[in-house]
Amino acid sequence: MAVSEYRFTRRVQFYETDVAGIVHFSWFFRYMEEAEHALWREAGLSIHPPDSDIGWPRIASSFEFYRPLRFEDVFDVHLRVAEMTKKTIRYECTLSKNDEKIASGSMTIACVRKKPQGAKLQGIEIPREITDRITA
Amino acid sequence: MAVSEYRFTRRVQFYETDVAGIVHFSWFFRYMEEAEHALWREAGLSIHPPDSDIGWPRIASSFEFYRPLRFEDVFDVHLRVAEMTKKTIRYECTLSKNDEKIASGSMTIACVRKKPQGAKLQGIEIPREITDRITA
Amino acid sequence: MAVSEYRFTRRVQFYETDVAGIVHFSWFFRYMEEAEHALWREAGLSIHPPDSDIGWPRIASSFEFYRPLRFEDVFDVHLRVAEMTKKTIRYECTLSKNDEKIASGSMTIACVRKKPQGAKLQGIEIPREITDRITA
Amino acid sequence: MAVSEYRFTRRVQFYETDVAGIVHFSWFFRYMEEAEHALWREAGLSIHPPDSDIGWPRIASSFEFYRPLRFEDVFDVHLRVAEMTKKTIRYECTLSKNDEKIASGSMTIACVRKKPQGAKLQGIEIPREITDRITA
Repeated sequence: MAVSEYRFTRRVQFYETDVAGIVHFSWFFRYMEEAEHALWREAGLSIHPPDSDIGWPRIASSFEFYRPLRFEDVFDVHLRVAEMTKKTIRYECTLSKNDEKIASGSMTIACVRKKPQGAKLQGIEIPREITDRITA
Repeated sequence: MAVSEYRFTRRVQFYETDVAGIVHFSWFFRYMEEAEHALWREAGLSIHPPDSDIGWPRIASSFEFYRPLRFEDVFDVHLRVAEMTKKTIRYECTLSKNDEKIASGSMTIACVRKKPQGAKLQGIEIPREITDRITA
Repeated sequence: MAVSEYRFTRRVQFYETDVAGIVHFSWFFRYMEEAEHALWREAGLSIHPPDSDIGWPRIASSFEFYRPLRFEDVFDVHLRVAEMTKKTIRYECTLSKNDEKIASGSMTIACVRKKPQGAKLQGIEIPREITDRITA
Repeated sequence: MAVSEYRFTRRVQFYETDVAGIVHFSWFFRYMEEAEHALWREAGLSIHPPDSDIGWPRIASSFEFYRPLRFEDVFDVHLRVAEMTKKTIRYECTLSKNDEKIASGSMTIACVRKKPQGAKLQGIEIPREITDRITA
């Protein structure tokens, strides 16, 4: 069965907060990516296997922030595969705490053939062994 | 004269890269924020003065990524104030390297009165001493 | 019963790796601190309660690194309270993976009364409600 | 002329602070590493050239913290090569602000031949083109 969503619960770490007393907004993008990689593991895959010649650069990402998270808060991350094209995957993500919506985000990644340093990354079709296991 | 844009040049640090060999996408949001705070300093302000009772949480942020940045790359960050409403500021940001576009982003922040922990942040009008110095 | 040690298992996240393909060394200090805060929670305490007037700045920290950690590695963190003086706590920490030693570290923290910004932090005696619950 | 020390001035960024209102201690290790890589550039070298088959893992690092750094503080980093053996380099580092000592640290790195993932890193002699340019 292909995987199309993933949920996990996480606690805010001290080093994720800033002097305003809340989680720095850059961390929400990392929380979303943590969920993505866990979804791939759930599907029996790694997004970065040691010897792979393909990669998955992020081509777009966004978040809207509704409420702050604070040190030691426990919150839920829900990621779902919103759309798959031949060469890209788009995720949507919701963060919540005690059923209160904290933030919602989105991230689009592209499948590329790894190139020597400096060359522009070029999109390729997502391999069958991945589309068999991850689905919108 | 009110400030409406800011440019600076920066070098990629080792700890900003990841195992894919490029800058982790979460860093672009930090680069944009570095430019924001430098723009405020250019305007004679700090976005987080020690004793202020107002704060500036981010309410939305996004990036599109065109090309990767790598260790020790030198790149330019250009931030401009795209829009100011009574209670919010929206910035647009472009990253480039040797005149090649690397990424473009946007960030909206809201002016809020600081509240006891746990309370929902509430928007207030941007104080006059700030609108005198920062402008779209 | 006072708590004197804490163990947990953790997975390496993508954003913790660097272009050398391994976890950046600065993360080991964060892993050690994650264990510290979990130990305090285990003892029924928070190291940073919302309204507390005391704080716990780090006054020294060190690590020796034996083997690298890589993306998605699962590893163990073992923290123990090695020494408590009237005003300080010293922890020792070992990271291992499949019973292979990865790194060993140490961290000393001091109990201080929070001061207005800019003032030098001044050490105070560790309160009884903490020494009742955390012990070497 | 071989390079044996490096100084630079830097400003605390917002994302480097934590809820205690000061720079998180893990950042001091990154500041020290920033100085190291700048010292190598000053010597006409890169610590991580694209096609090199050698690497420089950190084998030990420590810091003592005397005073906190806060958002927008401007501080000085002074790194010097304290000792070079056949296979290792040890740096000592001092952070100061307005001639007040903030912290002092140390870091030892080893020269290794890059290995396939999972293999233990093995020390090799530091190449002549490096010992010609960096010295204790």
